[in-house]
Amino acid sequence: MRVDGRTNDQLRPITIERGWSKQAEGSALISFGNTRVLCTASFTNGVPRWMSGKGKGWVTAEYSMLPRSTNSRMDRESVKGKIGGRTHEISRLIGRSLRAVVDMKALGENTLVLDCDVLQADGGTRTAAITGAYVALADALEWGRAKKFISAKAQPLIDSVSAVSVGIIGGVPMLDLAYTEDVRADTDMNVVVTGRGLFVEVQGTAEAAPFDRTELNSLLDLALSGAVSLTGFQKSALAEAAPASVQGR
Amino acid sequence: MRVDGRTNDQLRPITIERGWSKQAEGSALISFGNTRVLCTASFTNGVPRWMSGKGKGWVTAEYSMLPRSTNSRMDRESVKGKIGGRTHEISRLIGRSLRAVVDMKALGENTLVLDCDVLQADGGTRTAAITGAYVALADALEWGRAKKFISAKAQPLIDSVSAVSVGIIGGVPMLDLAYTEDVRADTDMNVVVTGRGLFVEVQGTAEAAPFDRTELNSLLDLALSGAVSLTGFQKSALAEAAPASVQGR
Amino acid sequence: MRVDGRTNDQLRPITIERGWSKQAEGSALISFGNTRVLCTASFTNGVPRWMSGKGKGWVTAEYSMLPRSTNSRMDRESVKGKIGGRTHEISRLIGRSLRAVVDMKALGENTLVLDCDVLQADGGTRTAAITGAYVALADALEWGRAKKFISAKAQPLIDSVSAVSVGIIGGVPMLDLAYTEDVRADTDMNVVVTGRGLFVEVQGTAEAAPFDRTELNSLLDLALSGAVSLTGFQKSALAEAAPASVQGR
Amino acid sequence: MRVDGRTNDQLRPITIERGWSKQAEGSALISFGNTRVLCTASFTNGVPRWMSGKGKGWVTAEYSMLPRSTNSRMDRESVKGKIGGRTHEISRLIGRSLRAVVDMKALGENTLVLDCDVLQADGGTRTAAITGAYVALADALEWGRAKKFISAKAQPLIDSVSAVSVGIIGGVPMLDLAYTEDVRADTDMNVVVTGRGLFVEVQGTAEAAPFDRTELNSLLDLALSGAVSLTGFQKSALAEAAPASVQGR
Amino acid sequence: MRVDGRTNDQLRPITIERGWSKQAEGSALISFGNTRVLCTASFTNGVPRWMSGKGKGWVTAEYSMLPRSTNSRMDRESVKGKIGGRTHEISRLIGRSLRAVVDMKALGENTLVLDCDVLQADGGTRTAAITGAYVALADALEWGRAKKFISAKAQPLIDSVSAVSVGIIGGVPMLDLAYTEDVRADTDMNVVVTGRGLFVEVQGTAEAAPFDRTELNSLLDLALSGAVSLTGFQKSALAEAAPASVQGR
Amino acid sequence: MRVDGRTNDQLRPITIERGWSKQAEGSALISFGNTRVLCTASFTNGVPRWMSGKGKGWVTAEYSMLPRSTNSRMDRESVKGKIGGRTHEISRLIGRSLRAVVDMKALGENTLVLDCDVLQADGGTRTAAITGAYVALADALEWGRAKKFISAKAQPLIDSVSAVSVGIIGGVPMLDLAYTEDVRADTDMNVVVTGRGLFVEVQGTAEAAPFDRTELNSLLDLALSGAVSLTGFQKSALAEAAPASVQGR
Repeated sequence: MRVDGRTNDQLRPITIERGWSKQAEGSALISFGNTRVLCTASFTNGVPRWMSGKGKGWVTAEYSMLPRSTNSRMDRESVKGKIGGRTHEISRLIGRSLRAVVDMKALGENTLVLDCDVLQADGGTRTAAITGAYVALADALEWGRAKKFISAKAQPLIDSVSAVSVGIIGGVPMLDLAYTEDVRADTDMNVVVTGRGLFVEVQGTAEAAPFDRTELNSLLDLALSGAVSLTGFQKSALAEAAPASVQGR
Repeated sequence: MRVDGRTNDQLRPITIERGWSKQAEGSALISFGNTRVLCTASFTNGVPRWMSGKGKGWVTAEYSMLPRSTNSRMDRESVKGKIGGRTHEISRLIGRSLRAVVDMKALGENTLVLDCDVLQADGGTRTAAITGAYVALADALEWGRAKKFISAKAQPLIDSVSAVSVGIIGGVPMLDLAYTEDVRADTDMNVVVTGRGLFVEVQGTAEAAPFDRTELNSLLDLALSGAVSLTGFQKSALAEAAPASVQGR
Repeated sequence: MRVDGRTNDQLRPITIERGWSKQAEGSALISFGNTRVLCTASFTNGVPRWMSGKGKGWVTAEYSMLPRSTNSRMDRESVKGKIGGRTHEISRLIGRSLRAVVDMKALGENTLVLDCDVLQADGGTRTAAITGAYVALADALEWGRAKKFISAKAQPLIDSVSAVSVGIIGGVPMLDLAYTEDVRADTDMNVVVTGRGLFVEVQGTAEAAPFDRTELNSLLDLALSGAVSLTGFQKSALAEAAPASVQGR
Repeated sequence: MRVDGRTNDQLRPITIERGWSKQAEGSALISFGNTRVLCTASFTNGVPRWMSGKGKGWVTAEYSMLPRSTNSRMDRESVKGKIGGRTHEISRLIGRSLRAVVDMKALGENTLVLDCDVLQADGGTRTAAITGAYVALADALEWGRAKKFISAKAQPLIDSVSAVSVGIIGGVPMLDLAYTEDVRADTDMNVVVTGRGLFVEVQGTAEAAPFDRTELNSLLDLALSGAVSLTGFQKSALAEAAPASVQGR
Repeated sequence: MRVDGRTNDQLRPITIERGWSKQAEGSALISFGNTRVLCTASFTNGVPRWMSGKGKGWVTAEYSMLPRSTNSRMDRESVKGKIGGRTHEISRLIGRSLRAVVDMKALGENTLVLDCDVLQADGGTRTAAITGAYVALADALEWGRAKKFISAKAQPLIDSVSAVSVGIIGGVPMLDLAYTEDVRADTDMNVVVTGRGLFVEVQGTAEAAPFDRTELNSLLDLALSGAVSLTGFQKSALAEAAPASVQGR
Repeated sequence: MRVDGRTNDQLRPITIERGWSKQAEGSALISFGNTRVLCTASFTNGVPRWMSGKGKGWVTAEYSMLPRSTNSRMDRESVKGKIGGRTHEISRLIGRSLRAVVDMKALGENTLVLDCDVLQADGGTRTAAITGAYVALADALEWGRAKKFISAKAQPLIDSVSAVSVGIIGGVPMLDLAYTEDVRADTDMNVVVTGRGLFVEVQGTAEAAPFDRTELNSLLDLALSGAVSLTGFQKSALAEAAPASVQGR
């Protein structure tokens, strides 16, 4: 039994507050247990100069943690004057994950910036960020359609995407690691999966102990099952009526 | 009548969610209408090296806005690699305001860092930050007392503190300006007031039109009346039972 | 009696060396006692791209202290690679103060940059900077008029502006604090006043002890009387023949 | 047939010039075809202050590309004043990969810094860097043993480690992608494997097209076969007599 | 005849206002014609940690230009967030030049920082800075002796040092170039010479046209003659009674 | 006799591997004994915006040291976030030296960037860099001619250029100092000379002991003789058939 009473293949309680922000074209406050990430999607008509004239859009992401999202306070990267390696790495991962489900031609010359700010951290912040950012993205695309920046027939979303962590702790594969589990894991893997069950990213790391093919396979099985559940949560959230900020403004 | 139906001397709806963060020693999610600021207080036993051995504590603050807290997305200061003048100025203001109500000798060699992160901005973010940070600070001091870092008899809090904006719009003094009011104001003033009604900061600025003594006085009257209400909201929030994270952890 | 023999409502000796710089379109080396600030005004025909086409001008300011302007040497901000909060705050204050007396339409699409470099510091550097910058600004506007960048009929200067510090020391309100007074003050206020006696900025701060309405009023009285004298010094300086660098070049 | 005549499961020509640097405790100039990376290992007795007293060592890595290692010149990160996300990500990957085969207790309180500087880039720079860094690391450990910083009995190296890229191009899995192949790949995966055939890192990315379990498996098969060959090249290089700089100095 | 009526071997008018700063242990406002540089010397008892315990002192320098010291305004290096190559180069030159005439053993564990801030620039700012910094240095050493940080018998100054620019313009060697001459020079040389006539630095640069041995010799002749005059100005300045700030404070 | 058996007027073994890089338009890996510098020349058709329309080209250079090119590892400037004074100074020196032998009109609106990266350092890195960069530059100009960016008749190279260090050690002038000699030198001089024997730069520095005219002359004699040999090595290298990357690509 795990520290919070879950079974090894069980996600933490997942909640998605869609449209949390009144300012953004799309937004979601997502929780994976005590991990809480505010995801906003900013829609801009037009693309950066180096991309213009190609009839294609652009999707990018930035990840950050509030200084006291963690158990002991971290210095702000803005105060330090530079962004750390981990922040860079996760921002890039989120961006790639979302681009994998967007048809840039169908998006047209529009730009989407996903901001994922961790308000409270308890493990799995990058996977919660990807899962929540998808919901924000879907709403911002609807906003763009309502505003006629995306044509009526275009289908820029070609699939949904979610992410989950898996790891081996004391020899046992487990799904959706909380922070105290994460630090004890021999192997830690983040898996990004589309709604159709295809892999977008597989990032397995063995700082404590290298892993074999069998362990890899059991982790992938767990991750795919978790992704099915997360896809369900995303669908439920998006099935409700769109927040006012998404419809019109 | 104002855009949101308020009278000129009326605050926006104020809410304070005390103990919003499970990680911080004290915290409050405060709303002044659509302005929402997450304030956390981080308590550390000990002081920076340059202060140690004097038997006195230290209180400091950092303010920041999420990139999409505003109507159009701002670049992150961490990405730009430097903190802007406005951020610096408000961080310093919050720090001074809170230090004005803390007895550093009674605090002892302990450090408090107040982080005020604007999740959604609609005018008055610095005044909401000060008002919410006081609640987070009060809880973090209780945590320090529970942990015996502050002696039982010490009274580090010598008063409460809150802040409110006032301004003259079309010749009429108004309390607690929303963003659309703020941009139209001839004169804008931020006033920081203690629970006993004394001034901590008076910052009046006239970019559009210089103001005379009579106008200054009417603005100060409004601010003092607003501060009385804000003090009431703070008292109500702190009258409830302390969140679990404050009591023990 | 004060440390330098002044009465409580007396300014330090004020001198203004107009046209100190041969390079700048306007300049003044101003002294408030031992505080010496070199103020230069740089006039450029045209405005930053984001402002062009609106028929309006722009005025901005930068403040800095030489590393050994103070009693013990400070590190250079250029060497540290970032500008501190205090520098930012004062630069912004100077800019706002001067913009308050300039009619941007009458200025036309021209830019003025005021540089205020503290050569020697003994309290009141920001108030000396504002008072001196006004003289430099007035001369640079005349230069712009001589060069036909400003039309003959335009009156970009709508008032003069000066600034002075006031504070309460040992319960007594005092005018124009020297450094040793400043560090002992319970309350410190910087007041920016136009030649007509209207307020542009009122910035009162109580780090040591909050202040009441009566104290605030006595400080404002002192500041207004000081501003009358400073306006006189500015007028005298500008009444002399313009320096060669301002007339033609 | 591939552009350079290789079969799909064939590595490019691999060369390892061990001891290329006269200054470093261990070094290797490694080539994967036209990709050339200079790897140096710097051995320091002692660890960073935050680690000292724990009887454990530390291994870290930094990756960088010379500005003209690529087809068109890139700006230097030192000139830009900040390190990009990709550089951070790869530096961290190299560090983790090498730490996976080092027993930090056996290393004792010693620090190893691996510098991997890409002199010429043609795809697979990070995998060449890991493979070459292992050789430099092995030599630096021997140097540390010769100098008695590592005890005679200690076995800090618990396995060897190498890395290779694999990808799916036009539906076909291929080993060790050159640059022109890399940009055409639908899926790109970097796999870090120990000499015993265990995984240290599996990083699969699908920016162009998500991949399924079957594709993932075929890529892992290819990677494992490539790793066997790379391990052989490492063994051959290390089987020769140690360079003078490693033996004594 | 030169633009300002000088002969080819004539310096511009040189003035040295010793003790210009009331704050610094030594200071000089030096003019080479319209070039005006404020030089301050900051004396600190003790040396940086990496030098302590060796019984030797340290002398370093920083050079900077005010943004409007030049004909058109330059951006501040503090605002740009980095120091340019030219600033670095000149700061290092000044430091080396002064260290050449200081006996670090006789100085003892004391640190001198020379700040040379160009208030007005018209060519030769680095040579004026070195010449003025020597005067500030000499006074700061006297201050250190008066304060007993330097022992009574110690002779830390082993020589004096000054600097002057020379150049070839239209085939003619000239002494102490003003800005308009400097930009027209084929060859430009800065020469740092001790009071005894020995070279400390010879920096000749030929961006427009390489020079031969004969030209080099004629430039060195001119520079040596100029240095004799500058040494005289330094002696005269130092022959007067020391300013109050140097004697006691 | 010198430490490596050379006579005082003897260069270390010089090797030039022309066309070392397959990516750059021109390149050379140059060795002065154990000092090894990789010099690449990047040719771009066009000039920076501020230069365009003048019919002239631009040549610039950047110098850097790999972190473990030296005996003990240095921190990377990219990681520190700023470039040090020494790096700036040498980059500027290399750029000026090469510009002295290029006719910018004949070059036309083309840009050449010389990157000099020190792979192994043993004294004289800047002189090796200049000497090698000339070879890379010459090849890149040929590439530009082959590509018709430079007209057939144009002669952008007006001379060759090389550089060598000289110094006085224990009273004896010596040529081409190795690192252990450099640190013992009383006077150190870097001399940049054209193929015709004219001076481009003369940079003599006396941190340990000022030098007189006789010593200066003997150093210049040594440098000129060394330059003759270096010019010979450059000619030999360029006399061979051009590498494939230079001819066509």
